[in-house]
Amino acid sequence: MTKHIFIEKCLKRTKKVGNFLCAGIDPDIEKLPSQYSRDLTGLEAFLLDYIAFANDYVIAYKPNISFFEALGLDGLRLLEKIMKKVSADIPVIIDAKRGDIGNTAKMQARFIYDYFGADATTLHPYMGSDSVVPFFEYKDKFNFVLVLTSNPSHDDFETLILDNKKPLYENVLSKCNEWLEKYKNVGCVVGATSNGLATLRQLNDSLLFLLPGVGAQGARYIDVVNYSKNVEGLCLINVSRALMYHNQFSYHIIDDILNN
Amino acid sequence: MTKHIFIEKCLKRTKKVGNFLCAGIDPDIEKLPSQYSRDLTGLEAFLLDYIAFANDYVIAYKPNISFFEALGLDGLRLLEKIMKKVSADIPVIIDAKRGDIGNTAKMQARFIYDYFGADATTLHPYMGSDSVVPFFEYKDKFNFVLVLTSNPSHDDFETLILDNKKPLYENVLSKCNEWLEKYKNVGCVVGATSNGLATLRQLNDSLLFLLPGVGAQGARYIDVVNYSKNVEGLCLINVSRALMYHNQFSYHIIDDILNN
Repeated sequence: MTKHIFIEKCLKRTKKVGNFLCAGIDPDIEKLPSQYSRDLTGLEAFLLDYIAFANDYVIAYKPNISFFEALGLDGLRLLEKIMKKVSADIPVIIDAKRGDIGNTAKMQARFIYDYFGADATTLHPYMGSDSVVPFFEYKDKFNFVLVLTSNPSHDDFETLILDNKKPLYENVLSKCNEWLEKYKNVGCVVGATSNGLATLRQLNDSLLFLLPGVGAQGARYIDVVNYSKNVEGLCLINVSRALMYHNQFSYHIIDDILNN
Repeated sequence: MTKHIFIEKCLKRTKKVGNFLCAGIDPDIEKLPSQYSRDLTGLEAFLLDYIAFANDYVIAYKPNISFFEALGLDGLRLLEKIMKKVSADIPVIIDAKRGDIGNTAKMQARFIYDYFGADATTLHPYMGSDSVVPFFEYKDKFNFVLVLTSNPSHDDFETLILDNKKPLYENVLSKCNEWLEKYKNVGCVVGATSNGLATLRQLNDSLLFLLPGVGAQGARYIDVVNYSKNVEGLCLINVSRALMYHNQFSYHIIDDILNN
């Protein structure tokens, strides 16, 4: 079976750099190292340095659009610039957590895929199929649906037990698999620190997992890789804070993440 | 007990205009009446005419940010302009369907509340408390959490039965009530066409409901008002397409919606 173009791109990068790291881009002026001015100009210079560094060591980027939005339209303009600075062979997941009734979801997909040209995005499952299918209809794009997140309050709803004795998130996983079979471009967000990770991988070996939680949130890279690869031998381990905010970029940062 | 400032504003408007209409703002260049040019200039002129008309007849506005985003940064700039054209006594709900882990949700709230100055927004519940609380912490703002939506695929997850024999959406309603008690600025999105509406109102008479589904989606205004008001005598009935896309704006449009 031919692989989806997004999977192909990720696998090629993995071969090249020898890891499964996805570099989060969560721009925060307050966290800039002291050599950068604490304004949009300083932030832009910092992000360009970060990307120039990470281009050699990661398989994908995940800019978090909310961090750009928090800076207003100038922030979103910066995201546009950044998108153009990423090497063409590195896929970009715009982390946007979208999802809405059909005609609105179509508009959301236009923003993320047509306007910004992202290769992939993240989606909320709550409203069901018609709130995400307009994204799936972009055949060359890839979509990660929230299944089991690593934030403390994931227990409020995600882990509720249904009358079939299974937690809600397993049901979302099953639905993601149906969508994958039909549309070929669906994966899941699964928190790297969540207890359910190994079980989810056992339940399904096809879906590609995007895993936040390594680094600042506490999970170890090696453990997560061992539990997370799908049948294509791929997983995307997102690291944001632990990768980004350093006074100087060097391979030691990567090495620390991979071997800690 | 003193009422939340958003509720106060809505109640004042209801007294003034005699209805519970919230005017959706879903800008779509393809739907512009023929006298407007099919570009951003035409769209802006149309939206200003629409608002000048609706200012006299509705209690709130609900711009759908995704429709602006679909037009790129120029679209979002148009939203900024529109926000300034709304009478100061009319509350504006930016329909954004946000929600993410704490540090990201904080950024999302900055965009909607600090940057755009909205009075309220809409939120996805899936990730639980810490994905929405950063919004609740804006004490003067109001937040509508998705509970039971009116799109066909709400059956995928929202209506799943839990092991307590209740549907997921009732559980989300209960959690919204906890949040309301603690933060005072939480309401729900409940589809006007959904079978569960009357039951949800019986289960809880405190939460303010924002109800899409009247007009293009098929529900009748009068029926919805009768089932939807909370203990403060308020509900927000959103109408978008049926209110917006007319060749000429006149009171007949409002009259048709209220009496059909």
